[in-house]
Amino acid sequence: MTEIRDPVHGYVQLEGFALEIADTPQMQRLRWIKQLGLASLVYPGANHTRFEHSLGAYHLANLLAKQLGLADDEMMLVGAAALLHDVGHGPLSHATESALTPYLRKEHESIMDILKKGELREVLERYGLKAPDIQAAINGIGLGQIVSGEIDVDRMDYLIRDAHYTGVAYGVIDRLRLLQKMTLYNGELVVEAGGVQAATSLLISRLLMHPSVYYHHVCRISECMIAAAIRRMIDDGTSAAAVKAMDDIELMSSLQAAGGYAAEMAARIRSRRIFKRAVYVGLECLDPSVLKVSEKMLAQEIAHEAGVDGDYILVDSPALMDTPEGSFPALVEGEVKALREVSPLVSILERAHRATWRFGIYCREEDRENVAQAARRCLNLKKNRLIYRYIDTF
Amino acid sequence: MTEIRDPVHGYVQLEGFALEIADTPQMQRLRWIKQLGLASLVYPGANHTRFEHSLGAYHLANLLAKQLGLADDEMMLVGAAALLHDVGHGPLSHATESALTPYLRKEHESIMDILKKGELREVLERYGLKAPDIQAAINGIGLGQIVSGEIDVDRMDYLIRDAHYTGVAYGVIDRLRLLQKMTLYNGELVVEAGGVQAATSLLISRLLMHPSVYYHHVCRISECMIAAAIRRMIDDGTSAAAVKAMDDIELMSSLQAAGGYAAEMAARIRSRRIFKRAVYVGLECLDPSVLKVSEKMLAQEIAHEAGVDGDYILVDSPALMDTPEGSFPALVEGEVKALREVSPLVSILERAHRATWRFGIYCREEDRENVAQAARRCLNLKKNRLIYRYIDTF
Amino acid sequence: MTEIRDPVHGYVQLEGFALEIADTPQMQRLRWIKQLGLASLVYPGANHTRFEHSLGAYHLANLLAKQLGLADDEMMLVGAAALLHDVGHGPLSHATESALTPYLRKEHESIMDILKKGELREVLERYGLKAPDIQAAINGIGLGQIVSGEIDVDRMDYLIRDAHYTGVAYGVIDRLRLLQKMTLYNGELVVEAGGVQAATSLLISRLLMHPSVYYHHVCRISECMIAAAIRRMIDDGTSAAAVKAMDDIELMSSLQAAGGYAAEMAARIRSRRIFKRAVYVGLECLDPSVLKVSEKMLAQEIAHEAGVDGDYILVDSPALMDTPEGSFPALVEGEVKALREVSPLVSILERAHRATWRFGIYCREEDRENVAQAARRCLNLKKNRLIYRYIDTF
Amino acid sequence: MTEIRDPVHGYVQLEGFALEIADTPQMQRLRWIKQLGLASLVYPGANHTRFEHSLGAYHLANLLAKQLGLADDEMMLVGAAALLHDVGHGPLSHATESALTPYLRKEHESIMDILKKGELREVLERYGLKAPDIQAAINGIGLGQIVSGEIDVDRMDYLIRDAHYTGVAYGVIDRLRLLQKMTLYNGELVVEAGGVQAATSLLISRLLMHPSVYYHHVCRISECMIAAAIRRMIDDGTSAAAVKAMDDIELMSSLQAAGGYAAEMAARIRSRRIFKRAVYVGLECLDPSVLKVSEKMLAQEIAHEAGVDGDYILVDSPALMDTPEGSFPALVEGEVKALREVSPLVSILERAHRATWRFGIYCREEDRENVAQAARRCLNLKKNRLIYRYIDTF
Repeated sequence: MTEIRDPVHGYVQLEGFALEIADTPQMQRLRWIKQLGLASLVYPGANHTRFEHSLGAYHLANLLAKQLGLADDEMMLVGAAALLHDVGHGPLSHATESALTPYLRKEHESIMDILKKGELREVLERYGLKAPDIQAAINGIGLGQIVSGEIDVDRMDYLIRDAHYTGVAYGVIDRLRLLQKMTLYNGELVVEAGGVQAATSLLISRLLMHPSVYYHHVCRISECMIAAAIRRMIDDGTSAAAVKAMDDIELMSSLQAAGGYAAEMAARIRSRRIFKRAVYVGLECLDPSVLKVSEKMLAQEIAHEAGVDGDYILVDSPALMDTPEGSFPALVEGEVKALREVSPLVSILERAHRATWRFGIYCREEDRENVAQAARRCLNLKKNRLIYRYIDTF
Repeated sequence: MTEIRDPVHGYVQLEGFALEIADTPQMQRLRWIKQLGLASLVYPGANHTRFEHSLGAYHLANLLAKQLGLADDEMMLVGAAALLHDVGHGPLSHATESALTPYLRKEHESIMDILKKGELREVLERYGLKAPDIQAAINGIGLGQIVSGEIDVDRMDYLIRDAHYTGVAYGVIDRLRLLQKMTLYNGELVVEAGGVQAATSLLISRLLMHPSVYYHHVCRISECMIAAAIRRMIDDGTSAAAVKAMDDIELMSSLQAAGGYAAEMAARIRSRRIFKRAVYVGLECLDPSVLKVSEKMLAQEIAHEAGVDGDYILVDSPALMDTPEGSFPALVEGEVKALREVSPLVSILERAHRATWRFGIYCREEDRENVAQAARRCLNLKKNRLIYRYIDTF
Repeated sequence: MTEIRDPVHGYVQLEGFALEIADTPQMQRLRWIKQLGLASLVYPGANHTRFEHSLGAYHLANLLAKQLGLADDEMMLVGAAALLHDVGHGPLSHATESALTPYLRKEHESIMDILKKGELREVLERYGLKAPDIQAAINGIGLGQIVSGEIDVDRMDYLIRDAHYTGVAYGVIDRLRLLQKMTLYNGELVVEAGGVQAATSLLISRLLMHPSVYYHHVCRISECMIAAAIRRMIDDGTSAAAVKAMDDIELMSSLQAAGGYAAEMAARIRSRRIFKRAVYVGLECLDPSVLKVSEKMLAQEIAHEAGVDGDYILVDSPALMDTPEGSFPALVEGEVKALREVSPLVSILERAHRATWRFGIYCREEDRENVAQAARRCLNLKKNRLIYRYIDTF
Repeated sequence: MTEIRDPVHGYVQLEGFALEIADTPQMQRLRWIKQLGLASLVYPGANHTRFEHSLGAYHLANLLAKQLGLADDEMMLVGAAALLHDVGHGPLSHATESALTPYLRKEHESIMDILKKGELREVLERYGLKAPDIQAAINGIGLGQIVSGEIDVDRMDYLIRDAHYTGVAYGVIDRLRLLQKMTLYNGELVVEAGGVQAATSLLISRLLMHPSVYYHHVCRISECMIAAAIRRMIDDGTSAAAVKAMDDIELMSSLQAAGGYAAEMAARIRSRRIFKRAVYVGLECLDPSVLKVSEKMLAQEIAHEAGVDGDYILVDSPALMDTPEGSFPALVEGEVKALREVSPLVSILERAHRATWRFGIYCREEDRENVAQAARRCLNLKKNRLIYRYIDTF
């Protein structure tokens, strides 16, 4: 048993199998991958890593497993899944995922190949842990609900941890209460009536973290820039799989070594010379058809209209957000219902969430006015609400 | 200049006039009045007093006054109003207000009589502070908006402080940001665009504190019991004004000394033998006509139907809540608008708030079933949603 | 199982027997007794009660018992002892102890009489808990070391809790680590090598809390005043046992009702019109013989010399402090040694502790100069280091 | 005016000149340099950077300058010095300093060359800030005492910040109090009597942080490893100045690219395959002559005796620590004295500090026993107190 200091949970205790998993090079690599990618450009404190988040998720999984009364082998499976759930992340976490997924055709949650190699494979074998079982748990199957569900230990840890390191005041999850009030009911992980408000607090936290942190425009712009740099490097011959296997250090030095556009983007990010917003609007300002066109095609069309090099126009049209927490099952007076059915607040908050969605077009400062006007014409914008600039930002 | 340790703000610095006001017996009395009345019966940590809240409100008023660039005499007036805004509170704060107001026909904010007596009068005169100006400021007139408005230092301090001492995780107000983004615009206190999310955080905090703390059923039941005891003591000859001038110690010992029903209620509260809920329902279960009948008449009717002594049935039909924060003016792109107009989240939260309102009927444990059935008949309840029992409570 | 919110530990969970004990009138009385007596006159936030401290001690005892792997009946005994260890406290906690002990000839830890009466007796019987066993545990015998030893859950809870409510930054005990590293070794509670620094942190915390809080001169003066008032009330006919059974409300209203000197002292405390220091010196300024004379005799002698009524001179000559933590056994490389032997820091800190001891003489502001001069003559003071006034105080 | 979120201070506000300085590439580089070098190998949360520490030091300098009533140009000078005081740091902060200083013959505080180049030079000129004045302030001359003295804003920020991110509970500095009680007395920065305890708290914090964090053996071992790798890279032709100008990313990728021993050490650190302790002892176990021999010569001698390749034996013989805080001037009753003269605790703590000093010899796990025996013979060790292994570590 080893204890590791964690600013969020106090201590994380690792038992034998967990310690050995954490010590593999595959897991140690996560020490060099920032949890929030480039968010430290906005929040200088946000330098925390996937490694500590993985320890935190393991810690909460363990607490929950104990309170559910799981058997030893079940606890080991759930613990291993929590510890390993992010081992497949590429460098800079989500910041590179959008660039890599179209090439690799799989998300960071698919880790069968990683589980079956090197020291990790040896450790898993030694403890009788099977790769397909871990993968299934990470996919949320069976007791994997603990690790990956509408409300899970992954989400609890990252909301609290991200709030802690960014310094925003919104990590207000009553996690002790929430864990305590979770139970298994006919094999399904549910929250009892006494935990409904705690579950709601998780939804509120995410609702507040979204515009302040995850979708902060500086984060989105720098992520679009790094994604463009990575695409260029891949188009120039680096394999997408090789990029995905890098850590942050390797990615940044590879981009620099690549020269040209990729190096230019990396250098801009290094010294925080990032693009500016030419367009930044909510759903209500957009013709719905715009959402169906690819970001690349939109960028080319606007570049043509504006007479600007298309490499320097980045279109950011994220998927509409959902709030899966509302579907989480609550056990109230002997009946299982969706959280949104028993808590009027949850259903109201779900509607609020969509109001923070934004569509953006980013470019060099000197092209801004030019691109903004071209985009307005191409997209037939109802209004360019740059007012969001002020309201969204912390 | 004196500094006083405060667990919420670190230190509160008191300048000459403020220190002298704080040292008057009228203000020292607030040391012996609990901020949350009987909430410590639910939250054992909630023993904080009106005295420290008053210091906290003064502290925030001072910060805000400095940042607004007020003149010295304006700062002194605002500071004095913040410090004195609760000097008129009766024992146990709001817990006794509902019992006393019908007799006294004035709220705790009316303090002209207190300002004009004894040492407090002397101190105010020495510093050239006029009682009517302080009263006006406490009523929210002119710069009094700082002390008493839809968003004010009183509310900021109590939300954060009450969360701190109860231990609930909901004091999530970004107060530094909020204060920094407040400004005077045509004589009106407004929040700039950059502070809209911080203002929203205050609304969210109050929305969460309401059911968890302020309207926790144990608080409401014990407040109904203490109110009934006070009414009996007044009906038996103690003057309402005398009760209002007591502190918590004097009230509890007076009730004990009064004997009979008043002493019984006090003894029950002392040893936490409080009434139970026979009925506890939201608006959707009530015939609207019920809200128009006085609590006393409802209690008598149900007592008759149930065959139970009317003294032991307490009806609790609070006023419907409002969310004035939504009206607070925001200054966005040169225009002043209500907060709810610039923040979709605020308007959504306002609707959520009403969903936590509850109507209750409380009685001795042994009469519970009896009273519940009688009430159901008398009130023609659609459903007795005792489910709230679980969802509301922490 | 019930959960109670606690600002220090998050939640305290009470199992059946603990909940029933906590619900007895004897324990509920502790809700009305402040943990730090009159310290709220210095630290307005210090209104926390013996009740929440008792819950906190129970919580830590439970954690420790689990980690030591105690049997169910052992856990119940230790839990009951932790919960009940302060049930014998008089009003205002330690503030009245010095006045009452000479009359009662027993300390607050002797609670056999309380355990054998009323509802508490019934509950203990129902769960097969024997009063002598609980008393023995509270006296630190056997597993009672958990509750009462050189390092115990009582001390851990009060240091952290008192720091939390006063707002001083010195509650820096790494309690999780400390609990985790405690073990039973030949029936003795010891700390393992990995917990030595955590144990040291407890000593540092107490060293810092002492001058800032427990021995703050305003606390000491007001305690001397309340003790003098109580002695007068007892001399006038109230039984010491009756005083000890009061809570804070009953004590303050009894002193007021007593009239005369007792009421005057109570009124002074209520409105914070407390005595001032005429003398306040460390050991190095005192002739050792002074420590052998009773406080009462010293007061009379100085009163005579100064020509001041002896009731208005209070001599405060506390026992020299000890630091029992240094004796706590540490298990290092297979050997059990005293903490001070394995940690050079501990032995150094022990010597530091004595440097904060102070001898004081307090009187009315108007008599101050007079009394100071008389005392200097009577006590042959080497120097009257009122400089401590500034250094000690926060 | 811009505000930046900081988990430690809430917000850091940057005025015009400070914002422009912070935006230069020279300062942005600090975003990619970890404050605690390789301490994240022990404390996974310790990923904070020199950039946020620089902002924090600026923030505290600004608070202190305001409270001292400095003129605008003085505030600007002090602010610039605080912001820039670490701009000369090499990669991984102190972890590389011991390797680089022998080559460069200057410490990270000498930054005249950096101030006189590129965008930083332009910004300083625009605001009339002169490089020699800033360098003098960083050297602690004149008002530079605020930035660099026995007690300064640099130390306050790093102690609190390092505790926050490592998660240890020892960042207990009463910084608000300390700042408030600082004043200028005959041009000297002094602490008033009321701040003596707060100043002491800083000393205590450093005393606790030292063994737990700064001198944690895992930090020391990995720093010795990285230093050895850098020396090899320099000996193979890379210029020391070039290494110093790198950030963490560039250093780690350069070491990797260098191949051979340097790459091996870098790879070991990446995957946390660090050396082990063969010897780890305090002063009391060492012959004083050992401290006079260079680390390199000791390593060679032991390598020869043990028959192990000298590259794989690292000797760590740090300078003896001092506690300059004790010399900080305190203004008590009109006289200026050293802190250690007015606070008995300070002088006692100074003696405690030296007790945590350790001499270490590190090697590959497989050579451990071999090297330990050779070292014992060569150094004539009184005892190899590996007991420290347990006591020191968290």
